[in-house]
Amino acid sequence: MIVILKPNPDKERVARLIKHFHDMGLNTNYSEGSSTTIIGLLGDTSRIDENDIMVYDLVERVQRVTEPFKGVNRKMHPQDTILEVAGRKIGEGYFNVFAGPCSVESESQILEVAEAVKKSGASFLRGGAFKPRTSPYSFQGMEAEGLKLLLEAKRQTGLPIVTEIMSEKHLDLFADVDIIQLGARNMQNFMLLKELGRSQKPILLKRGLSATMEEFLMAAEYIFAGGNHNVILCERGIRTFETMIRNNLDISAVPLVKTLSHLPIIIDPSHAAGKRDMVQPLSRAAIASGADGLMIEVHNDPKRALCDGAQSLNIPMFETVMADVKRRVAFEEKQLQTCE
Amino acid sequence: MIVILKPNPDKERVARLIKHFHDMGLNTNYSEGSSTTIIGLLGDTSRIDENDIMVYDLVERVQRVTEPFKGVNRKMHPQDTILEVAGRKIGEGYFNVFAGPCSVESESQILEVAEAVKKSGASFLRGGAFKPRTSPYSFQGMEAEGLKLLLEAKRQTGLPIVTEIMSEKHLDLFADVDIIQLGARNMQNFMLLKELGRSQKPILLKRGLSATMEEFLMAAEYIFAGGNHNVILCERGIRTFETMIRNNLDISAVPLVKTLSHLPIIIDPSHAAGKRDMVQPLSRAAIASGADGLMIEVHNDPKRALCDGAQSLNIPMFETVMADVKRRVAFEEKQLQTCE
Amino acid sequence: MIVILKPNPDKERVARLIKHFHDMGLNTNYSEGSSTTIIGLLGDTSRIDENDIMVYDLVERVQRVTEPFKGVNRKMHPQDTILEVAGRKIGEGYFNVFAGPCSVESESQILEVAEAVKKSGASFLRGGAFKPRTSPYSFQGMEAEGLKLLLEAKRQTGLPIVTEIMSEKHLDLFADVDIIQLGARNMQNFMLLKELGRSQKPILLKRGLSATMEEFLMAAEYIFAGGNHNVILCERGIRTFETMIRNNLDISAVPLVKTLSHLPIIIDPSHAAGKRDMVQPLSRAAIASGADGLMIEVHNDPKRALCDGAQSLNIPMFETVMADVKRRVAFEEKQLQTCE
Amino acid sequence: MIVILKPNPDKERVARLIKHFHDMGLNTNYSEGSSTTIIGLLGDTSRIDENDIMVYDLVERVQRVTEPFKGVNRKMHPQDTILEVAGRKIGEGYFNVFAGPCSVESESQILEVAEAVKKSGASFLRGGAFKPRTSPYSFQGMEAEGLKLLLEAKRQTGLPIVTEIMSEKHLDLFADVDIIQLGARNMQNFMLLKELGRSQKPILLKRGLSATMEEFLMAAEYIFAGGNHNVILCERGIRTFETMIRNNLDISAVPLVKTLSHLPIIIDPSHAAGKRDMVQPLSRAAIASGADGLMIEVHNDPKRALCDGAQSLNIPMFETVMADVKRRVAFEEKQLQTCE
Repeated sequence: MIVILKPNPDKERVARLIKHFHDMGLNTNYSEGSSTTIIGLLGDTSRIDENDIMVYDLVERVQRVTEPFKGVNRKMHPQDTILEVAGRKIGEGYFNVFAGPCSVESESQILEVAEAVKKSGASFLRGGAFKPRTSPYSFQGMEAEGLKLLLEAKRQTGLPIVTEIMSEKHLDLFADVDIIQLGARNMQNFMLLKELGRSQKPILLKRGLSATMEEFLMAAEYIFAGGNHNVILCERGIRTFETMIRNNLDISAVPLVKTLSHLPIIIDPSHAAGKRDMVQPLSRAAIASGADGLMIEVHNDPKRALCDGAQSLNIPMFETVMADVKRRVAFEEKQLQTCE
Repeated sequence: MIVILKPNPDKERVARLIKHFHDMGLNTNYSEGSSTTIIGLLGDTSRIDENDIMVYDLVERVQRVTEPFKGVNRKMHPQDTILEVAGRKIGEGYFNVFAGPCSVESESQILEVAEAVKKSGASFLRGGAFKPRTSPYSFQGMEAEGLKLLLEAKRQTGLPIVTEIMSEKHLDLFADVDIIQLGARNMQNFMLLKELGRSQKPILLKRGLSATMEEFLMAAEYIFAGGNHNVILCERGIRTFETMIRNNLDISAVPLVKTLSHLPIIIDPSHAAGKRDMVQPLSRAAIASGADGLMIEVHNDPKRALCDGAQSLNIPMFETVMADVKRRVAFEEKQLQTCE
Repeated sequence: MIVILKPNPDKERVARLIKHFHDMGLNTNYSEGSSTTIIGLLGDTSRIDENDIMVYDLVERVQRVTEPFKGVNRKMHPQDTILEVAGRKIGEGYFNVFAGPCSVESESQILEVAEAVKKSGASFLRGGAFKPRTSPYSFQGMEAEGLKLLLEAKRQTGLPIVTEIMSEKHLDLFADVDIIQLGARNMQNFMLLKELGRSQKPILLKRGLSATMEEFLMAAEYIFAGGNHNVILCERGIRTFETMIRNNLDISAVPLVKTLSHLPIIIDPSHAAGKRDMVQPLSRAAIASGADGLMIEVHNDPKRALCDGAQSLNIPMFETVMADVKRRVAFEEKQLQTCE
Repeated sequence: MIVILKPNPDKERVARLIKHFHDMGLNTNYSEGSSTTIIGLLGDTSRIDENDIMVYDLVERVQRVTEPFKGVNRKMHPQDTILEVAGRKIGEGYFNVFAGPCSVESESQILEVAEAVKKSGASFLRGGAFKPRTSPYSFQGMEAEGLKLLLEAKRQTGLPIVTEIMSEKHLDLFADVDIIQLGARNMQNFMLLKELGRSQKPILLKRGLSATMEEFLMAAEYIFAGGNHNVILCERGIRTFETMIRNNLDISAVPLVKTLSHLPIIIDPSHAAGKRDMVQPLSRAAIASGADGLMIEVHNDPKRALCDGAQSLNIPMFETVMADVKRRVAFEEKQLQTCE
């Protein structure tokens, strides 16, 4: 439910109204825009009578949100959400590149890649320590040891890190991670979503392979409902009937999310096709469509990568892609976030 | 890798050979059929030279398994797996009906439904205590309290129970549950799969909404790889472009699983379509296709069900469906497992 | 729009009412059931005022049909449609097997297969003369010559024939064909649908690979709208993300069609999976789900078949399948239509 | 099969070699690039012995094309195909916008839209005369009369026209049409593809709603195999599980087609989402991904459009989109084709 206030409301009276809602057991979301000021009400609003709110002088009108997603809904929060993580701004008007290997494999590997992607202009280092693999017999990641190496790479390069969590039990291990990634296969791991909702860590939420837009936003809503509003969405390709590529990038997800929600959305062109050669054209499409960033797999030796070698760029390729990304981000009049 | 033995092998020599494989750090799967006896080797068999095995006199030949799923592969275990749970046999030649409400809602509800489905011939009581819901604002199940009510229903009716787990943290709560269900949305929750692999509880593994057959079997393989061979597969409809029904039952999953694997497979016609009226025709198709059982949602008052009311049968409908199921299971010359 | 009449309406007054509707430029569909008699109105009914119809004494009530499909809608025609083709009844309560090779390849091939499938109990001979092939370089069928061979096989065996049309230009060539098949790839070839609607030939309409149920019924509606009510629907597998089999049989299509429409529906288990071994289990599922028939590919020498060899049964396999089909059709208390 | 020639081959000897291939009953495709010169061989090359070709002095090496698509394969024709239609260049390095209403509805409508899109910078006028509609009761287009109005609009504005054909029987009516469109639902109408292959008209081939990339290219191959090499591919959204939008634009089709084939590919952002607001962001993505053009639905009064109103831009919106398109096409260093 949205309470739209009259222009230039008195701060004190707004505070009193908000307290009133809290007393009713509701959470509120205050959003002050240039033209309208809104109080979004979260929780069980079914028992509220609009007239009881309309009696307040400063209220212009009251509107119910029909979509099942409330907190992540743009109607609740008309301005774009801009997160600030380790000094980088993430959201509309800014552009971040999250780059690094599929998996952390060794200290030298992660350090070499980290240095290189920093130099080319990435703002975050990505790398998997816990790896969700289709087969129990495949490399499952370096786990806790991999997390240590990521933190060491962060210490040496200054690059903040993003890495995937696979279990509620591991949350403590992620204390120094800058952004926690929730992978596509866990997008509807509701217990883990709830746990992440209780933390205040920024969460990078990847869309499930066959998740509808509504399900994707509802997964984000789980995190919101727990009180954590630091969510970044990531489209990474959907499963279709096509067999030539691994997934089909759903580019329409970008304008759809921008319409329906206030959250940032980035694109992962590496998983979206599963082919190295597609990373550049899909990155270009992502930037032009309005995405707020890219997540790109980079490896110092893709042929020997322990996972996803076929879709990983080598270091010179990434440099080339980044030069192109910079020109395009400038064309879109967005600020590329870097380590400079 | 499969080691096929010569006819009528000497028991002692077989035992010595198996010990030899264990000493090599491999797990084995011994399968004695009427015509062939097989030792399946699980683990890293890439470093094994077939010739080193062929030197054993009792070995007829050695064959590598090319599919990524090994332990669940019929090549490793040509006979059908028949599980025995609370006195019921589950697998080829037998037929079980798992019936009950989507969610446990109250003691009177679960007891009434349990008595009724037992009377109609169900062999297991199903009921959700922890519910995976798309929305954080929907009823999330009675949780631990729901489990207690299920166990109470079991005590009063003698019906063994199957209920869904959603978190590794809850495993202790499921100690007295007969079969633990892993839901479609958690089919690739690899940490939970590993945890279930370390238990010896029978696991009912539901196919993910867009999981390929290979991914489905690989999820079962995760449980196998941990040492738990008590797995029942469940096809519950796949996501397609159709909008008139919730999912499309993939009936071809039954013969495919029967060809590729030795595990039992059951069908959930309630979730497969999401419509009460489709339960009977889809159940008939399931029985005829060779499925080893059905999981059917039954509620004493579907209109007031806290979840999935539209697909739940009421008690008289279930009685009618079961009368039909009995005739058809008899036609297929399978033994219906009941409480008698 | 449906006009429901009062019980036991006077024939003459009904005739006058029907004439009245014809004078208004509408087509009518008269359906006399045991309990209700209905006049279905087809055409632009948007301008009709229900009250103008209610003035007629014999009218009980008037109801608009909200679905976009009208003529094929069960609401318009509550009884099942039973077609009669070459002495065979097709529809609810009856069961037909349409069998034969993917393509007609030679006189000896089609005659050998025709004799064999007749002997095993098929009621129709299927065979492709014009073949829709993905590649222009693949065998495109024997075309007009193939049609002649089919007619020769009909002459020698007495089996009526069903074969696919690919062009409006060929309609004259199909004059002696008993049932004209419209293939999956032409399900929305609207010009051909209209042309077939102007004929009175029975049409076997195959569902498109990704057609929704509504689109499928709307394709049938095109034929109906032209005045040809002799339509048999055929589900033949839908395209999904699965790669192990060619298509996934949508078994739920059978109960859905039976609910939504009065038309017969048959299943093609050969195309549905693309694998010989799946034909029997899928046929069993089809019969149990309520399908009115099966279309099965049979070849005298599948290994040398010019198309679809992998899914064709050889003659002894078909004999085995048919023995099983007969038992099951009897179990369902349906009448198998044969040449006897 | 590809015959790669040594550098700077003697023209006369090349001509003799080509004649030799023609004498063998093959079609040839001569492609002279800056670094390599290739003769592509089309037809039944299975019986050719590579050694018989290697004896020719000017031949460097011979290579078989493993993909089922041959003539449209980039291996056969390494340079991008640039068509020239009514003075516009279509293909790599150029950019065309095909704009106009879904359907021609009246003379004033088509003239008003034509003038407007010309003024904004479109290079072709699109408009449907024959309309493939899901329902037989929907507006089916103005048919032959609509074609006349399109030609009148062409006469008055100078804009060449593209319009859809639905039947082989109508080919004569399309004699003065500049580009014949084959719609998504007819992508595998093989008889019509063959007919269009016998013409020399440029064909705009739309991808089927669930066609794989290989099937799409094989449909183009049908046209090629008939001798018509004037094909433009058009990606227009694929069918998925998503329900919020009509289709999902498969942006990866652009780089895939550019890799696999030498043909131009354009994007239809109007059908891809079915929503007006998505046209601009999807157009931007299309340009950035490397597409050679856009097909956009524009109507002078979308609210009263007889079809597809929800996805049609009105004239001022189109002007805004085109201003943006121009800036972006310039950024990509491509030449926008216009009427100037």
